[in-house]
Amino acid sequence: MVPKKWITFTTDYGLENKFVGVCHGVMAKIAPESRVLDVTHLVPRGDIKHGAEIFRQAIPYLPDGVHVAVVDPGVGTARKPVVLVVGEQLFVGPDNGMLLRAADELGGVDAAYDISNPDYRLIDVSSTFHGRDIFAPAGAYLAAGVSPAEFGPPIPVDDLIRIPQPARSFDGAVFQGEVLIEDRFGNLQTSLDSEFLESNGARLGATLEVSTESNRYNIPYVETFGSVGEGELLAHVDSADRLALAVNLGSASRTLGLHEGGSFTLRVA
Amino acid sequence: MVPKKWITFTTDYGLENKFVGVCHGVMAKIAPESRVLDVTHLVPRGDIKHGAEIFRQAIPYLPDGVHVAVVDPGVGTARKPVVLVVGEQLFVGPDNGMLLRAADELGGVDAAYDISNPDYRLIDVSSTFHGRDIFAPAGAYLAAGVSPAEFGPPIPVDDLIRIPQPARSFDGAVFQGEVLIEDRFGNLQTSLDSEFLESNGARLGATLEVSTESNRYNIPYVETFGSVGEGELLAHVDSADRLALAVNLGSASRTLGLHEGGSFTLRVA
Amino acid sequence: MVPKKWITFTTDYGLENKFVGVCHGVMAKIAPESRVLDVTHLVPRGDIKHGAEIFRQAIPYLPDGVHVAVVDPGVGTARKPVVLVVGEQLFVGPDNGMLLRAADELGGVDAAYDISNPDYRLIDVSSTFHGRDIFAPAGAYLAAGVSPAEFGPPIPVDDLIRIPQPARSFDGAVFQGEVLIEDRFGNLQTSLDSEFLESNGARLGATLEVSTESNRYNIPYVETFGSVGEGELLAHVDSADRLALAVNLGSASRTLGLHEGGSFTLRVA
Repeated sequence: MVPKKWITFTTDYGLENKFVGVCHGVMAKIAPESRVLDVTHLVPRGDIKHGAEIFRQAIPYLPDGVHVAVVDPGVGTARKPVVLVVGEQLFVGPDNGMLLRAADELGGVDAAYDISNPDYRLIDVSSTFHGRDIFAPAGAYLAAGVSPAEFGPPIPVDDLIRIPQPARSFDGAVFQGEVLIEDRFGNLQTSLDSEFLESNGARLGATLEVSTESNRYNIPYVETFGSVGEGELLAHVDSADRLALAVNLGSASRTLGLHEGGSFTLRVA
Repeated sequence: MVPKKWITFTTDYGLENKFVGVCHGVMAKIAPESRVLDVTHLVPRGDIKHGAEIFRQAIPYLPDGVHVAVVDPGVGTARKPVVLVVGEQLFVGPDNGMLLRAADELGGVDAAYDISNPDYRLIDVSSTFHGRDIFAPAGAYLAAGVSPAEFGPPIPVDDLIRIPQPARSFDGAVFQGEVLIEDRFGNLQTSLDSEFLESNGARLGATLEVSTESNRYNIPYVETFGSVGEGELLAHVDSADRLALAVNLGSASRTLGLHEGGSFTLRVA
Repeated sequence: MVPKKWITFTTDYGLENKFVGVCHGVMAKIAPESRVLDVTHLVPRGDIKHGAEIFRQAIPYLPDGVHVAVVDPGVGTARKPVVLVVGEQLFVGPDNGMLLRAADELGGVDAAYDISNPDYRLIDVSSTFHGRDIFAPAGAYLAAGVSPAEFGPPIPVDDLIRIPQPARSFDGAVFQGEVLIEDRFGNLQTSLDSEFLESNGARLGATLEVSTESNRYNIPYVETFGSVGEGELLAHVDSADRLALAVNLGSASRTLGLHEGGSFTLRVA
C-alpha cells in the first residue's frame, strides 16, 4: 500500500510520564517519514465512552491516514487489538468499542483484522503497555505501507465489540437526552444535536424545560454564552453541533447536579 | 507568496479535550508541508493580557512564519478575526489586543486585514470555536502561500484594538510596577526590565524596598535563587529580562499577597 | 558529522508557560530540518532522580539522534552543561547525574565535552533558563551536524557527576528495594526487575511478604491488575520490566504508606 503521511494519536496515557513520548519513539523508528498528530492524551483514564466520543467528534477534522486511538482498561485480557479499514482511513486500537463511533461517523467499517502477526509488534510484549508494544508499531507499519491484511486474520465486522449509542429520543412531546462530555468548566455537552431538536420543534429562542432526577429548570435556548447574564443557565449549540447546557461564567454541572453519562428530559416550555 | 514552513500556535484551549488536536488536523489538511510548533495551550482561559504577554515574550525565539495566537473570550461577537503583517511575520488571531504586544516587540504592524473571505474558512463556522473554523484555516492558507490581502478588506492599523501597556514608571525616586505573570510556583514577573531599573539607579546588589497595598518589604536584588536562604524573598532579573520577585523554594505571591495584574512601588533602600 | 533527523526533549519545564515552546523555537531556527520528539515536560520540578529514571526507561524506545534532557535545579551555578557521546547517540544536558542512567543503559559514555564555545549558544545567556540559551542550541547544532568536540574541552568520563543507583540487593533470603517512580494513581514502580527476582527464587504466582518501616503485607505476585479483586494489593512486572506494587482500582502508595524514594524489604512468603 502507499505510505501514509499522517498518524493521529488519541489516548488516556496522561502527559506527566514517558508513555506518550515512548510511543512517539516507537513510531519514529518504524515510520520516520510519517508525522504524528496528537489529538489528546488526557481522556479520563479507562473511560472508553468518553474516549470514543472525543475520537468521533475529532475524526472529521483529522487528515487522511492512520488513526491510533487507545483507551484500554482491558489491556492484558482477551480483548483483541485490531486494525479497521474505514473508507480511506485506517484505525488501530483495542476492540472494545473505542473505535466504532468514529468509524460510524465516516460510514462504517469495511474490514477488520486481528493484530496477531508478531512481525509487526515489538519483540517483547508487556501485559500492561500495548500502546507501545502493539498499537504504536501497528500504526507505524500501516503508515509505512504494510497492508491491513498482513496484521492477522480478518474479523467479521459484526463481531466487533460495540458500546451503546448515547441515549436520545423524542416521544412527540418530550426529548430524552444524555450528557456526553462534561468539561472541566462544568459545561455539559448532550446527545441531542441541533437538527434533531429543530426537526422536532425546539428552535433557537425557545425556553427549554430541563428535568433532572431531582429538579426542573427553565433554560433559554440561545446563540452563545453572552446572551444571558453572569451566573445564568443557557442552552446553546456547541462547536460539535450538540446542544450544550452551560452557565455563563459558571458551572452547569454544579448548578444542575448533572454529570457525564447522566440523563435528563427536555421539552419546549 | 512563498509558502511558510512554520506555523506557531498559542491558545487557552487546554489539553484535556480535542480542541488543539482538531486545529492541528485542520492545518494538516490545508498545509500538509508546514509544521506546527505549539507555544502553549494553557494560557488561563480568556485572559487576553496573560496570553498577549506570553506571546510577546516568546516571539523573538520563534522561527519565521505564521503565528496563530488565540485567546478569545469574545468569540461569536462582533470582534474581528484578523491577519497582521509584521515585517516578515504573519500573525493570525482575534482583534482584541492579543496580537499587538508581540507585534510591537517586532517593530509594529505593517498591514492588517479582516478575515472575511469565505474561501479561506471552513464551510460551517460555529459561534464558539473560531480556532478551528477561522484561525487555523487562515494560518494554514497563509502558510500555503495565500497572500494576506486575499483574506479580506484592509483595516487601518490605528483601528486595531489595543489593551493597555503594563504600568511602569519612575518619578525620580520611586518605581511603579505591575505583576505581568504569576506562575504556579508563586514567582512574580514584573513590568520593570533590567535596563529601566539600571538606568534609574537600581543595580544588582542593592536592597529594594517593595511596597504593596498593605505592607513593605526589603528585598535583596541578587543574581539568582541560591543567593538567598530557603524561604527568603529575592528580586532577580528573569530569563525574559524582567525583574521578578520570588521566594527561594517558596511562593512570593503568598508571601507578598501580590498577584498577576497587581501593582507595587519600589525604591532603592 | 552527518545531520541527525531527531532531537528528543525531556524536561521539568511544565506546559502552562512558554518555556517548552520557546526551546522548540530555538531548535527550529538552528536545525529546521530536524524533528523534535517530546518525551515529557512534567518531570517533578528539580527532581533529578525522577528525571534520570524516566529518561533511562525511555531511551531504548527513542530514535537515533540527539537527546536533550534537562532537570537542572543548579542552573546558574558552577555545574557544567555537557555533550555526551554514547555510542551512536548524543546526549545534551546539565552535568548533574540526569544523563548517566540512560547512558549506562546504552553501554556507557564514550566521550564528554563541556559546552563552553560561545558560537553554539544564544548571544545572551540568562542565569535561569539554560534550556533556551545553552541546551536547546547545543542539541540543534549537534543535529545540524556540528561535531561534539566543537562545543568545548573534553571532560574525563570519570569526572562526570553521578547520582546513586537505586538501592537493590538480595542477601539470600530478603530482597531490599526502593520505589523508583510513584505515579499519580499511587502505583509504585520499584528497583527490583523481574530477572533479579526470578534468578533469586521469586516467581510469578508466589505470595510476597513486603515490609515497610511500619507494617508488613502479603501481596500476590500476579500477571496484571485484573488478577486480584477491587481494592486489593498486587505485585506485577510493569512495562519497564520492574516489579510494581499496586492496588486494583486504588492507590498502593496510600495503602502502604510508601512513596517515591522510599525503601522496603521483600521475601517470598
